[in-house]
This record gives sequence, structure tokens and C-alpha cells, in this order.
Amino acid sequence: MGLNSNRIEHFSDLEAPPPSMQETATPSIQPPPLEVHRVCLPPPRTTAQKLRHRLSDIFFPDDPLHKFKDQSWHRKLVLGLQFLFPIFKWAPNYNLQLLKSDVVSGLTIGSLAIPQGISYAKLANLPPIIGLYSSFVPPLIYSVLGSSRHLAVGPVSIASLVMGTMLSEVVSYTEEPILYLQLAFTATFFAGVFQSSLGFLRLGFIIDFLSKATLVGFMAGAAVIVSLQQLKGMLGIVHFTAKMQMLPVLSSVVHHKNEWSWQTIVMGVAFLVLLLTARQISMRKPKLFWISAAAPLASVILSTILVVCLKSKAPQIKTIGHLPKGVNPLSLNMLFFRGSHLALTFKTGLITGILSLTEGIAVGRTFASLQNYQVDGNQEMVAIGLMNMAGSCTSCYVTTGSFSRSAVNYNAGAQTVVSNVIMAAAVLVTLLLLMPLFQYTPNLILAAIIITAVIGLIDYEAAIRLWKVDKLDFLACLCSFLGVLFISVPAGLAIAVGVSVFKILLHVTRPNTALLGNIPGTQIYQNLSRYREAVRIPCFLILAVEAPIYFANTTYLHERIMRWIREEEELLVSNNKSNVKCVILDMTAVTAIDTSGIDMINELRKMLEIRSLKLVLANPVGSVVEKLHRSNVLTSFEMEGLYLTVGEAVVDISSSWKA
Amino acid sequence: MGLNSNRIEHFSDLEAPPPSMQETATPSIQPPPLEVHRVCLPPPRTTAQKLRHRLSDIFFPDDPLHKFKDQSWHRKLVLGLQFLFPIFKWAPNYNLQLLKSDVVSGLTIGSLAIPQGISYAKLANLPPIIGLYSSFVPPLIYSVLGSSRHLAVGPVSIASLVMGTMLSEVVSYTEEPILYLQLAFTATFFAGVFQSSLGFLRLGFIIDFLSKATLVGFMAGAAVIVSLQQLKGMLGIVHFTAKMQMLPVLSSVVHHKNEWSWQTIVMGVAFLVLLLTARQISMRKPKLFWISAAAPLASVILSTILVVCLKSKAPQIKTIGHLPKGVNPLSLNMLFFRGSHLALTFKTGLITGILSLTEGIAVGRTFASLQNYQVDGNQEMVAIGLMNMAGSCTSCYVTTGSFSRSAVNYNAGAQTVVSNVIMAAAVLVTLLLLMPLFQYTPNLILAAIIITAVIGLIDYEAAIRLWKVDKLDFLACLCSFLGVLFISVPAGLAIAVGVSVFKILLHVTRPNTALLGNIPGTQIYQNLSRYREAVRIPCFLILAVEAPIYFANTTYLHERIMRWIREEEELLVSNNKSNVKCVILDMTAVTAIDTSGIDMINELRKMLEIRSLKLVLANPVGSVVEKLHRSNVLTSFEMEGLYLTVGEAVVDISSSWKA
Repeated sequence: MGLNSNRIEHFSDLEAPPPSMQETATPSIQPPPLEVHRVCLPPPRTTAQKLRHRLSDIFFPDDPLHKFKDQSWHRKLVLGLQFLFPIFKWAPNYNLQLLKSDVVSGLTIGSLAIPQGISYAKLANLPPIIGLYSSFVPPLIYSVLGSSRHLAVGPVSIASLVMGTMLSEVVSYTEEPILYLQLAFTATFFAGVFQSSLGFLRLGFIIDFLSKATLVGFMAGAAVIVSLQQLKGMLGIVHFTAKMQMLPVLSSVVHHKNEWSWQTIVMGVAFLVLLLTARQISMRKPKLFWISAAAPLASVILSTILVVCLKSKAPQIKTIGHLPKGVNPLSLNMLFFRGSHLALTFKTGLITGILSLTEGIAVGRTFASLQNYQVDGNQEMVAIGLMNMAGSCTSCYVTTGSFSRSAVNYNAGAQTVVSNVIMAAAVLVTLLLLMPLFQYTPNLILAAIIITAVIGLIDYEAAIRLWKVDKLDFLACLCSFLGVLFISVPAGLAIAVGVSVFKILLHVTRPNTALLGNIPGTQIYQNLSRYREAVRIPCFLILAVEAPIYFANTTYLHERIMRWIREEEELLVSNNKSNVKCVILDMTAVTAIDTSGIDMINELRKMLEIRSLKLVLANPVGSVVEKLHRSNVLTSFEMEGLYLTVGEAVVDISSSWKA
Repeated sequence: MGLNSNRIEHFSDLEAPPPSMQETATPSIQPPPLEVHRVCLPPPRTTAQKLRHRLSDIFFPDDPLHKFKDQSWHRKLVLGLQFLFPIFKWAPNYNLQLLKSDVVSGLTIGSLAIPQGISYAKLANLPPIIGLYSSFVPPLIYSVLGSSRHLAVGPVSIASLVMGTMLSEVVSYTEEPILYLQLAFTATFFAGVFQSSLGFLRLGFIIDFLSKATLVGFMAGAAVIVSLQQLKGMLGIVHFTAKMQMLPVLSSVVHHKNEWSWQTIVMGVAFLVLLLTARQISMRKPKLFWISAAAPLASVILSTILVVCLKSKAPQIKTIGHLPKGVNPLSLNMLFFRGSHLALTFKTGLITGILSLTEGIAVGRTFASLQNYQVDGNQEMVAIGLMNMAGSCTSCYVTTGSFSRSAVNYNAGAQTVVSNVIMAAAVLVTLLLLMPLFQYTPNLILAAIIITAVIGLIDYEAAIRLWKVDKLDFLACLCSFLGVLFISVPAGLAIAVGVSVFKILLHVTRPNTALLGNIPGTQIYQNLSRYREAVRIPCFLILAVEAPIYFANTTYLHERIMRWIREEEELLVSNNKSNVKCVILDMTAVTAIDTSGIDMINELRKMLEIRSLKLVLANPVGSVVEKLHRSNVLTSFEMEGLYLTVGEAVVDISSSWKA
């Protein structure tokens, strides 16, 4: 039996019961297939229907509105409010028990947020106070809009570093501090706009293009750069390069050897060892998380006291200096959208926006999966974006969910975002009352805190795993690492994304093809080079094509298939076996085809016909059959040529030869 | 029976007979599968072996050295010579019969090449004589190096147009003719270097990224632009814009209405109608190919005579003017690789190089497949590249195989590349003796010849077919068409390539997933929405993932799979059916996985375990099993979780439930 006009049919479910609910008993021992099954076209749909389906799949894969289905009007309103403001989801069930946990964890992350805030602001070349401002307003906004329960919001090292790098390459933060501040706030505003519009437009998948492999390399590179930069504070150097590449930083360290101060070095190294030890203890025993959480604040206090005591003996040790008291001043008037720096702030906003989004979403998802609740990526983007837009108007720079603080938050037993509110309260108390105490805090302690924080970003175990599992992933990782170290942060990222995309294209351009054989006693056809028990079927050449057939691979596939046939024929001739009469392409993994691919199949069929070889296709997926049908290639396959499985093709064609 | 440590095994073929030659009788009626088959790992290979295999697959998919295997030393030498200089393949068997055919076809394409050469040189804003030079040296070189038997080599419209556009945007060909000429030769040299290095480095697949859809749009756009540009010659306008976009050209036509000359228009339109009619006749009846082949030369002669006769009455008709006699002068001294225009010539060379390569290779392949011989893409690139490098030193600009002239060549019965030699001889005679005759040839006839040639590039039927078969291909086509018309030639191309690559990325980012059901009485599992007869298996949710699992789609796939489970559970609850207990992922079409994908599968497994759902994988391909194995995810699947087919998974898991 071959393919006749009704071998291909549209599935029409006008009369049949909805197919979705038809069920059968578990198939156990079945009679072997005696009949040949028809290859179906997918149910007919108009272009508009297809477009709608495709768009809903691109933008709404999670079907965010499914909760609203079949609900009363009142319930829909409540659900809508909960959707927009996740606070309504947990607030009604909030109780004293939860509050107790949240206060403990909130105070813990507060004690971490204050020294980190000051340090990260230094990393972004901003006044230290901006770091505290940024730990006050954004957490409050996130607690209303955010859907993660464990995210601890505030400035983070990567975004601070990138902003510092990109802005200070154009504007000097020492010579034009006000302009630099304006640019930072404007970039933060752009980052917020970009983040929230990604969420609103449901384009969240864009951040997926920063693969984990890329990020491992990028973060390690950034950590090395940041640590080297901190040598300024640790060695007490005054005149330091503003550049971020490895070589200028190292040469700057060496060239200003005369500025090194041994007092600073001794104290810095001592505190660094202290902080690293605390970190190590907490990593070994997660129950002792509070040691590493309390260590930064304790070190700040201790070092400040030391500096006050030693002030006369070691005047070389640089301190933070005077910090203004009071809550965040408004900074709406500092945003500016004209002039020559617009492109710079836009670009900085875009890159810090993507990076902070990536960190925030990844952290949120990690802790959500540990506690088995869902975090909606697009909604989180809107929350983080709005938080940054509001932040840019209240003297904050880019903030997001920090990995280190969220981990402390989680380990300290945080239950809801209320822990962020408690942290903000702690920062508020600091801003209002404790600012003068920081005047004698030495810069070296900030450097030590930064080094301790970023050293955790060097995940060499992940890099080793990448090398073991996937060499191309490792290459992407290495590229972003070296790119960040030796060229620049945006270039490193761009190269890494390029390598990742190249990897996808390479897979499509040079797809795998495999020779299949039958596993005796079954209808299973498997790769001959993998399954020793699989055997060839005489007169048949069965090939699996393992990629969509696209313009980028049609030439290759054509050549490769012809080579398989040539090699097979040479092998058969040298063994005096009967020659190939039929080529079966197993199309199961050909998940898509374009017009070039259709032309290739048609061309191949004609070419094989000249050599009196038959070409048949087994198990083409719906969209492929549809396109073959619409391009009239199916009619050129005439009476035969499409089968549901390789097994049926073999049985049917061999029986037609016998007849 | 579940997966235990020996369910996964390496295929070792140390002792078994070579599996490639094992054969079985045609499997006909088979007992149903009672045993569960093991999932095999691919044979173990070292990283170096894998790299070598991958590289040979990327760069040598056609195994070009297979002919040299098991040959004697002497034979290898002959084959090597034939490989480098295809002339040695056909020259020994060349005879008078073949020569006769080649002389006829060579003279035919010669008569076409002379007027086209002059016209296309005008299109590139070069002196007309350069077009004749370019029809003399390159064909001679190609006849030694080229492997196509029907390619007619010379200047082509697209490359001429692009070179003209790109160079004249920076340098005026009227004000600085010498500099312009130097730039053109240098760009030609770069084009040749680029083409031959693509061939040498076996990177020919780069031109595959210009898909047919892109080229249809690009050529139609270029044809419209070129035709509009020819209004200058057809209307007799003197002051015309040098820009290539649609709007400046049209406004230039309208603004210089006072320069229109009715004598030119009447004569131009008359010859255009003549040429188009000749073309139409030859297209309807391929046997009358000589009508359209002879028409341009006949028109040139006729129009020249007319102009000479009417010289006193219609002095408005512009003519070519004086052309120097003699063969190609050397132009090595006109190549220059320094100064501010280096980037321009490099870019122009790159783009004209790619475009002319695309045309040359496509034309060569088309006629080779009509006569069932092979054209080696990489070898052709080397030939075309060397021909252009030599051309740039002998006053030629970019040349390649022209579609229109090759078609005439083929129809006129060309048998070997000797027809190119005959054509070159005809051009030589023209250069030496007939140049003064062209002095009074009117420009309008060149415009008419160009319009007739490029109008054939507008393939609206192909565009309609693209729309019918593949909307995204049509979009790429439309983008390149509009991009060329309204922005610029390189921008149009870049946009179109971008759309094509975006299409591949979109397919990977948002892959299809489908719910499978059993076709009763078989072990076949197929898409429930396509096959009405397919039925669900109670307690199982069987999902096919139709794409490699990459960083770009892990988030989507995770969400989408969870949504399938949620929807299925809701459906089952509303129908009071027993709940899902096991999720089977059919991995047949998951042709690759990266570390993010592995993490996703692991994550999914843990998440489903919390909901007491079992996750198993059916038929993972070799590289996927290997990576799962190396990343230790297989051990987390513990005793069960990998099956060779969906059918075996269902049978095995249900029987384990019964037990």
C-alpha cells in the first residue's frame, strides 16, 4: 500500500468527541502493525489563527490569565489586584509568627546592607551615602510589587562595577562629581525603564540569552577586575587609574609603589583574613550563617575604633570622611535627557539594567524553587524596573536582588518581603542617627568587604563542570572571562553572547545525521554506531536527520546525504551485497523546514530518481507535512513517499517489491 | 524492570564483527516487545577524537579526499592535478565534436557579452572599456581553474550595481575618475582575496546564510533601483543624482524634467520594447534562445547606425564616445592598500565578493544538477577568487558566473569551459579591431539592455510561493527588498540576514511541544492534535519536545511543561479521571543539550518529585545521553528514568505499578 490521496488527511474534529479526553486501557501486548497508517496534516488553520497562536506562545507561554478563567466578577478583581500587587496575596494571612522570623532576618540583612551599600557605592565611584540611600527606598517599593519572598534588594557588585566602569571612562568622578552623579541617576532611570518595558512587553526571554556559562565567565572576570581595583584601598594608593582593564590596573599598582602604606596594608590584610575566615565558616556550616552576616558590620565598627585610637600614629590610613545625615533627597531634577551624554547614559542603563535583571531574576527563581513557589519572570521585571525608576528620583542608583544578601536572608529564616521592610527601617535609623559614626571608617575595610563579596563570584567548580560536559559552553565562558579582563565589560558580554548564538547557528548549520538499523524482534530503528544489536536492512539506507532543515544547512545536508549513499554503495560493492534501492529519511527530529529545505528535498528526490533510488520520508512533524503539502512537493512524491514510522515504510516497501 | 547501572552501556566494538555489515532479513511480522531495551551511550571517544570528528564535519562534509583512498602513487598525482586544475579532467578527452558545440555557444555568449560588458561597466560608474576588459582575462583564468562546464564568466549586474553604489557614495566618479578606478580595482582585489580564502579555509557555508528568500527580495529591490537609475539614459537627463535609494532617484527624475529629450525617449522605448519582446520569445520557446542572445548586439549595431544617420537632426542623443583600442593594460600599480579609503574598498570588496560568489555558485550548481555532474563549492570559490585577483591586476573589475549568459551558454549547447575561451577570443577581436565602431553607440541602448537584463531578476512568482509556504521567509524577502529600496544595499542585506538568523533563534527560543497519544493496536505514539485515532494513556502525560534544549529556551520549556501538567490535571479533575502519575518526555527531537538544559531537566525532575510525579526520558539521542551521563544527572535519575521508546516506558512503568 502506498500513499494515495487519502493517505494524507486533515484531522477534523467537528463530529468526533473531543480527542483530548479519549482514553484507552494501558496498551500491553499488542499485535504487530499489519496496516500502514496515514500521515496526517495538522488541523487546518487560517494565517490569522496561526499568527495568534504563535504570538501567544511567544509572549504568553505561561498563560498568565488562566487563573481568571471561570471566576466570578468579584474574584477576578481580587485576583487582578493580587496579580498587580503581590502584597495582597500574603498580607491577609500575615501573622505575628511570620513577623518574628522576618524581623530576625531583616535585622541580619540590615547589618550586612549598611557596610555593603557604602562599599558598592565606592565601587561605582559614587559617594558612599548613595549606597545607603539605595538600600532604603528600593526595598520598600519591591515589598509592594515583588513576587519573590526571599529576595533582599539593594545595590549589587556587578551592576555597581559596570556602571562605575562605563561612566568613568567618559566623565571623571573626581573632577566633575555633580555631572557624574547626574549621569548615574539618569542611567538608573534608563535601566528601570528598560527593565519594566521588557516585563510589560513580555520580552523577558531576552535575558535568557545570557546563558549560565556566559555569566560564570563574566562574573569571574568582573571579580578579578574588582579585586585588583581594591588594591587601591588595600595598599593606600592615592593616584590610581580609572581604567578597568587588567593591565592598566596592574601597572598602576606597580607604578605607584611609593604611595603604598604599610599601616594600611597590615590592617587591610588582617581584616580581609578575618572576613574570609568568617565567610568560610558560614559556607561550611550553613547554620552559622550569622557569622559571615555579622562580620562586615563588626569589622567596620572594629576598624573605625582602631582608626580613632591610632589616628595620631597612622595618619596615612584614609577614611570615608564626613557623611550627611538625613533620608534620601529627591533627585528628579538631576535626571537629564539631552546633550552629548545621552547615548552614554542610555547604553550604561541598558547594560546595567540587563545585568541586574539577570541577577535579580536568577536569585528569585533559585530561592523560589527551593521553597516550591512560582516567581513570574515578567512580573519581577516590572517590579525591579519600577523600583529603579523610583530609585532614580530619590538619589538611588541601580539596585536589584543581591545573591549574597538573599542567601543570608533565606538562611536567617525570612518568610515574606517584610524582611526587606525591616532592613529598610534599619537603614533609616542609620541614616537619621548613626551617620557621624562612619566618619572615621577606613577605606581599606570597604575594599576588604568588596573583595570578600566578589571572591564568591569566581565559581571555578562550575567552569570545570562546563569543560567536562560541554566544550562550547566552556568556550563561551572563557571568552566572556577574557573579554572582561582584557577588553571591556560590554565587549566581554557581547563576545560571550556572540559565542552562544554562534553555537546555536553551528548546530543548525552542521546538523548530525545518523545511519539507523533495526533492533531485531522490534519495530525500533536506532543509530547503528550506538546500538550494537541494531542491524542493517538489505536494500534500504535509513538516515536520521537531527535538525530543522533550513537555508543554512540545505547545501550541507544535500552533500552529506549523497556521501552517506556513496559510502554505503562502496561498502556494499566491496562486500558483494545487493545494492541500495530505497533511502528512508527519518524526519522525526526535523522540527521545522523552510522553502530552501523543501527545495532541497525535492532536488534530492529528483537526483536519486536519476540513479533509480526511491526516497521516502518517515514521520515528518505537522508543520513540515503542511509546508510540503502547500509547496506541492507532496504531489511530486506521487503515490508513495510518506510513512508514519520507519518500520512501516520498510514493511510496506519491501512487500511492494515482492508483489 | 527499571534502569539499573547496566541499562546504560558503552557500545564497544572490540570483539564483535564490524556492526556496519551485520544484516537481517526484512523484519515483517514481529512479536511485540516484551523486554525493555537498554539506552546506550555512544562509543567512548576522547576530546581530541571528538574535536577532530567535529572539525572534519564542519570543514570537509563532502570528504573531498575520498577519491585518493587506496590509489597508486601515480594515480594520486593525476587526481591531485585534476583536483587543483579541473582542466586536466576534460582536456584529455576533448575532441572536434565538443569543440564544434563550444564554438557555437562561445560566439553566442560573446555577442551577448560585448554589449552587456559595456552596459554593466556603466552601471558600476566605470569607463565602458573596463567591462570589455573584464570579459577577456577572467574567462580565460576560469577555464583553467573552474569546475563548472556551463558557467559563462564576466561582469554581472548585481555586483556592478553594488560596487557603483558603495564607491560613488564616497568618491565622485565624474570629479575623480582616476581615484574611482583605483578604488574599483582595489575592491576587486579584496573581493578576490576574500573569495579565494573562503574557499581555501573551506568556509563556503558562509554564503549559505544568504538564503534564497533573502536573495529573491534583494535582487528584486536591486532590479527596481537599477531600472530607475537607467531613466537617466532613457530620458536623456544630464544632471542625475549619484544616490541609489528610491526617493532621491525619483525626485531627480522629476526635478530635471527640463532635460528630458523626446528623441532619446522615443528611440529608447522602441529598443526597450524590441529587447523585451525578444526576451519574451526566448522564454516561451527555449529553442529560440538565440533571439534574445542576438538581440542586444543587433540593437547596438542598429542604434549606432541610426545615430550616425540622424546625427545632425538629433544631437541630444548622448553617445559613448571614444574608446581606446588594445588589450587590457596592467593595473597592478593602481591597487593601493593605504590611506583613508582602505576601509571603503575592503567593505566594498567584501560585499561584492559575497554577492558575486553567491550568484556564481548558485548558477554553477543549477546547471550542474541539470546535467547531473558535481560542482565543488569550495573549489569554485578558489577559482572565482583567483580570477578576480588576477582581474584586478589587468584592469578588470569584479566578475563571476552570470545567470543570463550561462543560461544562453547552456541552451546554445556548450559542453565545456572552452566556450568561455571562444567568448574571450571574440572579445579580444573586438578590443583589437572594432572599438572605433562603438563611438556613436547611444547611451540609451545601454540603459535598455540593463533594464532588460535586470527585469528578469524580479521573481514575483517566487515571492508568492514564499508567502504561501513560509510567512517568515516571506518577511525576510520583504525586508531585504524594502531595505535595498529605501535604505541602502548593504543595509538591506544585513537586515535580511538578521531576519533569517532571528528566525533560527526564534525556533530555538520558542520550540514546539506536543502532547502524544497511542495509536491503538501499535506501539506508535503521535501528536494528539494531529491524529484523531491517537488516544491518551491513563496516568501518563507524554510530551514531545521539538528542539534542542539550550540556554535560550530552558526557562520557556520549564514553564511550558509545567503548564501542560497543570492543564492536564485541571482537565482530569473536571472529568473525574484518575490523576497523572508519570510524565514522559519524548526526547527524539532534542538533538542537543547544553549545561543549562541539563540543569533544567534536573530541576524539573526535583520539582515533579515534590508533587509525587515521576519524570522519565524516552529515546534521548547519543550526545544528550552522554552529557547527562557526564554531568551526573543520570545518577540522580537513579534506578529508573531512561527508556528507548515511549512505548517501552509506558509498558514498563505500568507493569511496575501493578507489581
